[in-house]
Amino acid sequence: MPRIFFKKKILDTSSIPQADTHSEEEKREANKITLVIFGVDKFEETEVKCFDDCIPTLDTNDLVWINIDGHPSHQLLKKMQDHFKLHPLLIEDLCTEQRPKVEPYDSVLYIVLRSLYYDHERVMIENEQISLILGPNFIISFQEREHHLSTFIKERIRSRKNRQHNLSPDYLMYTLIDVVVDNYFVVLEKIAETVDDLEEELINTTDALVLRDIHLLKRETIIMRKSIWPLREVLSKLHRGDFEQISPNITLYLRDLYDHTIQVVDTIETFRDMISGILDLYLSNIGHKTNEVMKLLAIAATIFAPLTFLTGIWGMNFKYMPELTWTWSYPIALAIMGIVIVSMFIFFKKKKWI
Amino acid sequence: MPRIFFKKKILDTSSIPQADTHSEEEKREANKITLVIFGVDKFEETEVKCFDDCIPTLDTNDLVWINIDGHPSHQLLKKMQDHFKLHPLLIEDLCTEQRPKVEPYDSVLYIVLRSLYYDHERVMIENEQISLILGPNFIISFQEREHHLSTFIKERIRSRKNRQHNLSPDYLMYTLIDVVVDNYFVVLEKIAETVDDLEEELINTTDALVLRDIHLLKRETIIMRKSIWPLREVLSKLHRGDFEQISPNITLYLRDLYDHTIQVVDTIETFRDMISGILDLYLSNIGHKTNEVMKLLAIAATIFAPLTFLTGIWGMNFKYMPELTWTWSYPIALAIMGIVIVSMFIFFKKKKWI
Amino acid sequence: MPRIFFKKKILDTSSIPQADTHSEEEKREANKITLVIFGVDKFEETEVKCFDDCIPTLDTNDLVWINIDGHPSHQLLKKMQDHFKLHPLLIEDLCTEQRPKVEPYDSVLYIVLRSLYYDHERVMIENEQISLILGPNFIISFQEREHHLSTFIKERIRSRKNRQHNLSPDYLMYTLIDVVVDNYFVVLEKIAETVDDLEEELINTTDALVLRDIHLLKRETIIMRKSIWPLREVLSKLHRGDFEQISPNITLYLRDLYDHTIQVVDTIETFRDMISGILDLYLSNIGHKTNEVMKLLAIAATIFAPLTFLTGIWGMNFKYMPELTWTWSYPIALAIMGIVIVSMFIFFKKKKWI
Amino acid sequence: MPRIFFKKKILDTSSIPQADTHSEEEKREANKITLVIFGVDKFEETEVKCFDDCIPTLDTNDLVWINIDGHPSHQLLKKMQDHFKLHPLLIEDLCTEQRPKVEPYDSVLYIVLRSLYYDHERVMIENEQISLILGPNFIISFQEREHHLSTFIKERIRSRKNRQHNLSPDYLMYTLIDVVVDNYFVVLEKIAETVDDLEEELINTTDALVLRDIHLLKRETIIMRKSIWPLREVLSKLHRGDFEQISPNITLYLRDLYDHTIQVVDTIETFRDMISGILDLYLSNIGHKTNEVMKLLAIAATIFAPLTFLTGIWGMNFKYMPELTWTWSYPIALAIMGIVIVSMFIFFKKKKWI
Amino acid sequence: MPRIFFKKKILDTSSIPQADTHSEEEKREANKITLVIFGVDKFEETEVKCFDDCIPTLDTNDLVWINIDGHPSHQLLKKMQDHFKLHPLLIEDLCTEQRPKVEPYDSVLYIVLRSLYYDHERVMIENEQISLILGPNFIISFQEREHHLSTFIKERIRSRKNRQHNLSPDYLMYTLIDVVVDNYFVVLEKIAETVDDLEEELINTTDALVLRDIHLLKRETIIMRKSIWPLREVLSKLHRGDFEQISPNITLYLRDLYDHTIQVVDTIETFRDMISGILDLYLSNIGHKTNEVMKLLAIAATIFAPLTFLTGIWGMNFKYMPELTWTWSYPIALAIMGIVIVSMFIFFKKKKWI
Repeated sequence: MPRIFFKKKILDTSSIPQADTHSEEEKREANKITLVIFGVDKFEETEVKCFDDCIPTLDTNDLVWINIDGHPSHQLLKKMQDHFKLHPLLIEDLCTEQRPKVEPYDSVLYIVLRSLYYDHERVMIENEQISLILGPNFIISFQEREHHLSTFIKERIRSRKNRQHNLSPDYLMYTLIDVVVDNYFVVLEKIAETVDDLEEELINTTDALVLRDIHLLKRETIIMRKSIWPLREVLSKLHRGDFEQISPNITLYLRDLYDHTIQVVDTIETFRDMISGILDLYLSNIGHKTNEVMKLLAIAATIFAPLTFLTGIWGMNFKYMPELTWTWSYPIALAIMGIVIVSMFIFFKKKKWI
Repeated sequence: MPRIFFKKKILDTSSIPQADTHSEEEKREANKITLVIFGVDKFEETEVKCFDDCIPTLDTNDLVWINIDGHPSHQLLKKMQDHFKLHPLLIEDLCTEQRPKVEPYDSVLYIVLRSLYYDHERVMIENEQISLILGPNFIISFQEREHHLSTFIKERIRSRKNRQHNLSPDYLMYTLIDVVVDNYFVVLEKIAETVDDLEEELINTTDALVLRDIHLLKRETIIMRKSIWPLREVLSKLHRGDFEQISPNITLYLRDLYDHTIQVVDTIETFRDMISGILDLYLSNIGHKTNEVMKLLAIAATIFAPLTFLTGIWGMNFKYMPELTWTWSYPIALAIMGIVIVSMFIFFKKKKWI
Repeated sequence: MPRIFFKKKILDTSSIPQADTHSEEEKREANKITLVIFGVDKFEETEVKCFDDCIPTLDTNDLVWINIDGHPSHQLLKKMQDHFKLHPLLIEDLCTEQRPKVEPYDSVLYIVLRSLYYDHERVMIENEQISLILGPNFIISFQEREHHLSTFIKERIRSRKNRQHNLSPDYLMYTLIDVVVDNYFVVLEKIAETVDDLEEELINTTDALVLRDIHLLKRETIIMRKSIWPLREVLSKLHRGDFEQISPNITLYLRDLYDHTIQVVDTIETFRDMISGILDLYLSNIGHKTNEVMKLLAIAATIFAPLTFLTGIWGMNFKYMPELTWTWSYPIALAIMGIVIVSMFIFFKKKKWI
Repeated sequence: MPRIFFKKKILDTSSIPQADTHSEEEKREANKITLVIFGVDKFEETEVKCFDDCIPTLDTNDLVWINIDGHPSHQLLKKMQDHFKLHPLLIEDLCTEQRPKVEPYDSVLYIVLRSLYYDHERVMIENEQISLILGPNFIISFQEREHHLSTFIKERIRSRKNRQHNLSPDYLMYTLIDVVVDNYFVVLEKIAETVDDLEEELINTTDALVLRDIHLLKRETIIMRKSIWPLREVLSKLHRGDFEQISPNITLYLRDLYDHTIQVVDTIETFRDMISGILDLYLSNIGHKTNEVMKLLAIAATIFAPLTFLTGIWGMNFKYMPELTWTWSYPIALAIMGIVIVSMFIFFKKKKWI
Repeated sequence: MPRIFFKKKILDTSSIPQADTHSEEEKREANKITLVIFGVDKFEETEVKCFDDCIPTLDTNDLVWINIDGHPSHQLLKKMQDHFKLHPLLIEDLCTEQRPKVEPYDSVLYIVLRSLYYDHERVMIENEQISLILGPNFIISFQEREHHLSTFIKERIRSRKNRQHNLSPDYLMYTLIDVVVDNYFVVLEKIAETVDDLEEELINTTDALVLRDIHLLKRETIIMRKSIWPLREVLSKLHRGDFEQISPNITLYLRDLYDHTIQVVDTIETFRDMISGILDLYLSNIGHKTNEVMKLLAIAATIFAPLTFLTGIWGMNFKYMPELTWTWSYPIALAIMGIVIVSMFIFFKKKKWI
C-alpha cells in the first residue's frame, strides 16, 4: 500500500552542526558514493570510499557528479557542509522528507523532486525523494535507495555525449530530472492498464475485491498527484530563468520538461475523474443488482403469501366448514389460486417488474 | 471505448540524431506526403514520393504546405531536421503524444492540437494528434491517420481563394485550426443528441445498459475536455501576438477562434454537469423503485403473516381445542381475518404507503 | 425541456461573401425590420420593407436604431456588410450561435448576449440570442424571435426621454442590455418560487415526479449559468472603458449593470446549492422511508416466523405426538406463543426499532 | 425558513424621477427618520417628522447622521435626491435589493451590506439590507426594519466618544459596519451550537426531523455566505484607500474589520464542510441501520423457512406416509429441525452476521 | 471532540481603554509571566510577579522575551498598552479569537497563529491561539494555556545559542513559529497512523464505530485546515520582506518555514482526499454486504415459498382430494419439490447469485 509521506525527521538534525565529537573518528560513511567525472573527451566513473576522496577532483576544472545512495550519514553531511559551505537549513532539509521544491542558496541551487517507479514484484507504485545540489562545476544527487535509476541516467548521458550542452552541470541536472519525469509516463501507462482492466471486470462482477482495487488505485493517484504537482512550479521557476545557475541555452529543454510535467498532471487528473466514474458505476451496479433481487423477492412474497394463506384457510380443522365436503371444492380452490397467480402477473407486468 | 492518451514513445527517438547509418540507404519514407503550392494565381497539389522532392519548391517564393499522414519515419524526420534546422526537442516531440501546446523555436513555431471526429461505424469519438510547424514561407502538418480532414481543408482554402490573407502561412495555419475546431462542434452536437436520448430513456427504464451508456458518455467528455482545454491557452497566446510568425492582420481571426474554443469548453462543462445530473436522476430512480418494491413487500408481509399465523393456529391438531367444534367458529375466524386486513389497510393509509 | 445551445450553422455562411449571384435578384428580405429614429425632439418608429429603406436615414445626423427579428437572410446580411463595411467574421458570427461576448471591429462594436424569459404557456425558460452592432450613430439589434422584448425597450426609452444621455447610441445599448438583465430577475423569481414549492412538496411526498422536477430545475440553472456567466466579463470589459465607442459618462450605468449581473450569477449559484440540497433531502427521505419499511418487515418476519413455525409443529400429522392429547396443551401452546411475542417486543424496544 | 433574496423592485422606481405630480402634495413621509448630531462636546438625537427638518442642521459644520427605518417613500427619496444631488442610479438601487457593494458617486460613497441577526422567537436567522450614503459631513443609513441595531450603534458611539476619530463620518461608517460584522459572530455562535447539538442527536437517533434540521442549517449557511462573501471585497476596497471619502487614519480599523470578515467567511466554509460531514454521517447511519435490519431479516428467513417447510411436509394429509405412524418419528423430526438451526448458526457465524 | 473556534469575546474589551478605575488597585495580574533576557553571553530566565517588574529590563539593550500564559488580565493589558504605546485594536484582538494573521502597527508587528498538539490522554487534537508582538528589542508571546511548548522553545534556543542570528528578536520569532510548525508534523503523523488503522479495520468490519471515527477524523482535518491555511499567507508576507521589523538575513529561514507550511497544508489536503476515499469504501462495503444479504433472502424466499405452498396444498382438509389416497403420491410430491429446488438452483446460477 502506498504510504503517505511527509517531513519525518530521518536523522536527528539538531545534532549535526554541533557534531564535532563524531567528526574526529575516522568512521567510514555508510553511504555508497559514486563519482563521475566529465571532461574534454573524458568520462570516468568510480566508486569512492568516503567523501574526502572526491575533494581532489573537485578542485580541477572538470565537471563532477557525486551520487549518494541511501540516507546520508552525519559524517558525510558534516564534511560536505564544510567543503561546499552549505547553509545549515539545506543540510536540515536533506535529512527530512520534503515536497518538490527549488531553493537558491548563496552559491548553489537546491532541488528536491520525487521519483516514482512501478515495483513489479510488490505490484505497487514506490516513491522516493531525489535531492540535487547544483554548484558552479559540480552536481550532487541524493537517492534514498540504490537502484537502476542511476544506471539509466549514465546510459543516457553516454548516448548523448556528442550533444553540445552535455558538459555543463545544468544540462546534467536537466537529464536527471528528465529521466525522473520519463519514469512518470511508465507509471501512468501502468495505471491506464489497471483502469482499463477494472472497467472490464466491472461488467462481469460486483465482487468486493474490485472495490478494494478501485480504492487502492484512487489512493495511488492521490499520492502521485501530491508527488508531482509541486514539480510543475519547480520547473516553471527553473525555465523562466530566475536562477543564475541555469544558463539560457538550456531554457528550451526545461520548457519541454515543464510541458511534459503538465501533461503528467493532466493525465493524473483525468485518471481521478475516470476512477471516480468507475466507482460510481460500481455503486450503481450494486444498486441495480439489489433492485433486481428486491423485485424477485417482491414477486415471491406477493405471489406465494396469498396462496399459502388460502391453503392455510382450508387446512384449518374447524368442524363446520361446509366447503370442505363439497365435491368440487378442491378444483375450485386450485382455480382460485390460479386466478390469483395470473392477476399478480398482470399487475407486475403493468408495474414493469418482469 | 475512448482510450486515454499520453506521451507514448511511438518511435525510439534517442536513435534519431545518431541515425547516420540509416540515412545512407535510399529507403523510401513510408509516409504519404502531399505538397500544396500557393502562388500568385497558383494552387497546385501533388503527392510526392519523398521529402527531397519538396526541396526545390521550398527555395522559391511560393507558400508551400507539406502534409504528412501517419507516423513520420526516421528518414523523413532526419531530412527535415537537416533542411529546416529544426531543434532536436521538436523532432522528439513529433514522435510522442503531446498535450495541445504552442512552442516558439528559433525560426519556426511548433503547434500541437488534437482533432476529434465522430466515427459513425464504431459509434465512438476518435481523437488524433495534429502537429503544425509554421515557418516563414512554409507550413508542415502531421496527421496520425490519413482521412477526410485534409480534403476538407483543401476545399475550404479553394473556396476562400479570393480573400486577402490566403497567401500567408499564418492564415493557412488559422484555416487548419479552424477546421479542427469546427469539427468539435459536430462532435458536441452528437453528444447533445445522446444526452437527450438518455434523458428520454430514463423515464421509461432503469435498465443497466443505460448506466453503461451514461458512464461511456461521461468518459468521452473527460477525454474531450483533456483534448480541448489546453487549446484555449494555445489560441490565447497566438492571438495576443506573442509570436513574430503571426502577423497582426490575422489577430481578429484568431480571437474569433479563441472565442469558439471557449464556447466548446463551456459546452463540455455544461454536458458534464448534465450527465452527472442524469446519473443522479438514474440513481434516484433506482432508489425510488426499490422503495416502491419495499413497500409492496412490507404490505405482503404485514398483511399475510398474521393471517397465515391464524390459519396455523386453527390448523393445529390438539385434541382439546374447544373452538374447533363450535358451529360459528369458521365464519367468526374469517371475520377476525377480515378485521385484521381492514385495520392493516388503515395503518398503511396513515403511513401513506398505499 | 430547455435545449443545450451551441454554435449551430444556422445559415450556410461560407456562401455569403460570394453570394453575388443572389444579390441581383430583388427578392424581399424575409425579416421584419423596425427602424427607430431619435433626433432633437424626434422619436419616430417605422417598419420598413427592406434594408435599402434605412439608408437615407443613416446618412442624416440622427441616431438610428434598426431592429431585426428572426434569422437574418443572406440578402439582408450582404447589404449590411456592404453598407457598414462589416468584417466577414462578424457576419459569420451573426449566423451562428455564440456565447455572450463583446468584440471590437474597426468602426463598430459587436455584442452578443442571451435573453431569458419565462414562457408561461409551456412552463419553461426560453433563451434566445441577442446580437448588437454599435456604430458611431447607429445601433443594429438582432433577435431570434419577434416578441415583447422590443416593445418593452421602446417603452423604457420613451419614459426616459428626458434623461440626458438618451440620444447617444451607447446609452441605447445600455438600455437594451439593462432590459435583458432585468428580465433575468423575473426568471430568478420564478425559479425561487419553484424551489420553495419543491421544498414544501418534499415534506409530504416522495413522489418520483418531484424528482423529475428537481432534475429539470437543476438543468435550467445549468443552462442559465451558461447563458449569463460570460455576460459578466462582457460588462466588465465595457465599463472599464476599453472601447472608444463607449463614452465615459455612461460608465456609471454600465458599472451598475455589471453589479446586477454579478448578483444574478450569485443567485444562480445559490440556487444550484439549494437544489443540490433539496436533492440530498429527497434522497435521504427515500433512505429514511426505506429504513422505516425495513423495520416493519423485520418486525413482521421476526415475530410471525417463529409463531407460524410453532403452529406448523403442532399441525403435523405424526401418530405419536403425546402433547396433542393433553388437556392443557392448547392453552399452554398459546401461552408459549404469547411469551415469544412479548420477548420480541422487548428485543425491538432495546434495538430502538419501535 | 430563510428566504432567497435578490433584486426585487420594492418600489416602482421608474416613476421616481418623474414624480413631479406627487411632490406637490404635503404628504408626510411614512418613514421614521432619526437625526443624530455630533459636534464639539455635542451629541444630540432627535426624531424628525420629515426630511425638510434635517436641512437646517446639514448646513452647519456639525457631523450629521440620518437614519431611516423602513422602505423609503417616494417623497423622501425625491427630496434627498434634490438636496444632495444624488445620482438617479443610486436612488434606484436604494429601492431594490442589492448584493453588498461599494460604489463611488461624484460626492458621496454608496455602501450596501446585509445585517444578519438571530430571531429567537421564530428560531431562524433573519437578514436585511443596510444602505449607507457617506458624504463630506453627513452619513445616511437605511434599514429595512426598525430594530435594536440602531440603539446598539448609538450606545457604541457614546461609549467611544472620547476616541480621537469619532467625529468624522468615515469613523461613524466604520462603527456602523463593525456593529453589523460583530452581529455575524453572534449568529455564528448560534450555528455552532446547532451543529454540536445535531452531532449529539445523531448518535441517538435516525429521526427524519434531524434530517430536516440539517437541511435548514445547510440552507442558512448558503444564505449567510451569499450575504457576507461580497462584503469581503467591499472592505478590501475600502481599506486599500481607493476612495477619497475615507481618510488614511481609519485604514487600520478597516483592515481589522476586513480580517474579521474573512474570519466569518472562513468559519461559514468550515460549517458547510461540517454540515456536509454530518449529512454523510446521517446517511451512513441509515445505511448501517438498514444493513442491521437486513441481517435480522435474513436470519429469520433462512432459519424459519426450512423449518416451516418441514412442518408443512409432515402436515400433509397423504394417506400413505409411512413415517407418520412410526413411534420415534416426532422426536426424530424435532432433532432434524434442531440440526438445521445449529448448522444455520454456524453458517451465520462464519459470515460474521451474528 | 474538536471545537469550532471563532472570535469569542473572551474579555469585555469595550471596558479596557476606560479601565481607569481598576488600574488604581494594586491587584496582582492573574497571569504567569516569564521573562527571558538574552545578552552577550547572557541567558537569564525568571518568573516575575507583575508586568512592572519587566520594565527595568526593557530599558536595557538586551533582547527581552516576555511570555504570558493564560488569558491576559485587564490590568496587564492596560499596563502593556501604556508602556509600549500599543494600538487599541491590537489590545482588542488579543482578547478575542483570531484567525492566523500578521499586522503591522506603528512600531510593532502583531502575529497570530494557532498551535496544534495531540492530547494523548483525551485522544484528540487540541488547538490554541498563540499571539506574538514583535518590537525593536523585545518579543511578547501570549499562550492560552501553560504547557510544554515554552520549555521546548527554550531548549531549542539554548541548543542553537552559538548560531549567528540568535540574538535578534526576529530570529526568536522565527524559532517560536518553527516550533509550532514542527508540532504540526507530529499531529500529521498521528493522523497518518489513524488513517492507516482505519483502512485496516475496514477490511474486517462494517461496524458503526468505524463510521464515527471516520467522521471525527474528517472533522479534525477540517479544523486543522482552518487553523493552518491562513498561516501560509502570514509566512508568505513575512518572508517577502514587507515589514521593517524583519531583517533580510532571516529571509532564508522564513522561506524554509513557508515551504514546510505548504507541505503541511498539502498533506492535510491529501488526508482529506484519503478520508473521503475511506468513507466511500465504507459505504460501498455496506452496499456490498446488504447486496449479499439480499441475495440470501431472495434465495430463501424463492426456494421455500413454492415448497411451503405445495405442502399447504396437500395439507388442506378437502374431502375430495383424490391424490391424497394414492399410494405413490407422497414420493411423487417429494420428487416435485426436489425438481423445484433443482430448477431454482439452476436459475440462480444463471443469475450469478450463488
